[in-house]
Amino acid sequence: MKKILITGGAGFLGSHLSKRMLEEGNEVTAMDNLFTGNKSNIYDLLADPKFSFILHDVTQPFWGQFDEIYNLACPASPIHYQKNPVETIRTSFLGIMNVLELALKTKAKVIHTSTSEIYGDPLEHPQNEKYWGNVNTIGIRSCYDEGKRCAETLCADYAREYGVDVRMLRIFNTYGPNMHPKDGRVISNFIMQALHNKDITIYGDGSQTRSFQYVEDLVNAIRLIMDYDKKELKKKLDDYGWDSDIPVFNVGNPDEFTIRELAEKVVKMIPDCTSKVSYENLPSDDPKRRRPDISMAKEILGWEPKIKLDQGLVNTIEYFSKFK
Amino acid sequence: MKKILITGGAGFLGSHLSKRMLEEGNEVTAMDNLFTGNKSNIYDLLADPKFSFILHDVTQPFWGQFDEIYNLACPASPIHYQKNPVETIRTSFLGIMNVLELALKTKAKVIHTSTSEIYGDPLEHPQNEKYWGNVNTIGIRSCYDEGKRCAETLCADYAREYGVDVRMLRIFNTYGPNMHPKDGRVISNFIMQALHNKDITIYGDGSQTRSFQYVEDLVNAIRLIMDYDKKELKKKLDDYGWDSDIPVFNVGNPDEFTIRELAEKVVKMIPDCTSKVSYENLPSDDPKRRRPDISMAKEILGWEPKIKLDQGLVNTIEYFSKFK
Repeated sequence: MKKILITGGAGFLGSHLSKRMLEEGNEVTAMDNLFTGNKSNIYDLLADPKFSFILHDVTQPFWGQFDEIYNLACPASPIHYQKNPVETIRTSFLGIMNVLELALKTKAKVIHTSTSEIYGDPLEHPQNEKYWGNVNTIGIRSCYDEGKRCAETLCADYAREYGVDVRMLRIFNTYGPNMHPKDGRVISNFIMQALHNKDITIYGDGSQTRSFQYVEDLVNAIRLIMDYDKKELKKKLDDYGWDSDIPVFNVGNPDEFTIRELAEKVVKMIPDCTSKVSYENLPSDDPKRRRPDISMAKEILGWEPKIKLDQGLVNTIEYFSKFK
Repeated sequence: MKKILITGGAGFLGSHLSKRMLEEGNEVTAMDNLFTGNKSNIYDLLADPKFSFILHDVTQPFWGQFDEIYNLACPASPIHYQKNPVETIRTSFLGIMNVLELALKTKAKVIHTSTSEIYGDPLEHPQNEKYWGNVNTIGIRSCYDEGKRCAETLCADYAREYGVDVRMLRIFNTYGPNMHPKDGRVISNFIMQALHNKDITIYGDGSQTRSFQYVEDLVNAIRLIMDYDKKELKKKLDDYGWDSDIPVFNVGNPDEFTIRELAEKVVKMIPDCTSKVSYENLPSDDPKRRRPDISMAKEILGWEPKIKLDQGLVNTIEYFSKFK
């Protein structure tokens, strides 16, 4: 039994990870400020004596003795993170700083969830972990993109300077039950619009592609990365040719779909849906295309996504139906 | 008479700016933690009743009523900023955050000094302000590069979200009297080596180029940017085609010299110097080439560097001679 802290533990991903860690017999503390997290995501966990919920903002220091810390706290959808850009970047930077300080003092292991957004509007395709990214420092998305880039840097520096055991994932588009219904991103938008027979809004001409990862696949990757023996992981990464002291894995589903294809799938899956597609202008700095190169995770972790988009959409539509 | 706060006021640039602001009749508070700043840089200012020195670390909140704040605090040379990477990135992020919070509450105007390092190892040459940069988030230089990138983002977000009047400069290589003699960068290295008749160390083959700006030119640019009327500046930037809400100017000297040329100049300028050139490996992530495109500063501010390298080197060698 391990003592686990999950920041952002009442969020979309955090609630799934909390559940998994409890199922594996651990003691789980979920910390969340409930800005985008939602207590309803963890209603079914609250009765478990091994589960604790703490209402706390990760930008404020905190204390506790944990074996493992999973840093998930940060608004992740543009509609949320652009609501209060200063708080977004503060959450990203101060959050991981507080986690790393705690880890340093208590020798906890850390997983930090970074994001494909650190690649910005990539000039290489698909992106592997060695790609440095293409991000506008002063654009309207930069509160998230730069905040997350800087968080990676902090992780690397605490690892190198103080020996904190921190492992990172760069998470690509992920979906599934417990997504915020007003998440504002394409999957939740399309499903909610289709469930209400409203027009499905495509920004741009719909030819831009995205890859979609089902949340269960992501939880599997997180577990594999955390459990890897530190020395063995270092050796495997060296052999692979990863020329950094810090483990960073792309985690996403490389199957690529155009936004238009996604819209068509969703409409087909919902019985009697009469939604049509409407087109609007692409927002500033929106990446045209993004797909993970997951070779490193495949090779080293033996991980790859298992859930096909059609299957994942069925589960997600079922979840969203309760908001109909 | 204006009330001025200069963070990093005892540093290389800060001491020159403090002096200039006093000469213009203002009341100047220089704040510095003296990590790379040096009180000897401001010995000649301390007797001036309009000058105050505060020993304070910019990462800790501070308070004061100022008309203008110049945020200069951050170790800027690799040898210093890599000494304690975690403190470097904290200084960069928390420093500007504290400045912006103070500016928000007191309506002070802010100049933030960013850096050409935000362009990383640029894929475009020369760099204009619209270039997004090429930076490794987890490299050994990233504590500075990403810290400064994230600081730009914070400035942009405080400007957009809260209306803080903040203007930025991206400063390219600058040199002159009051540079740290152990700054570790090429000009101080070469001069100190030549003054002691030691071998002049070139990293790589010396064909990489740099541009060198004399500190007086930089101080002129800072003053011009701060004094510009906000509305007029916005209009000029719009007319120029700058598609952002926040003013950012490259400030540097576009005259390009190879490192080898610089070494030869320095040796020639020091009488009886017998130094030879030796070559060592280029450190990881070192940019091969960097030169500012200063069209925007020229067009909008009517600014361009006036001091030629030969002239600037004479003054700088004279300054360094006292450490001989």
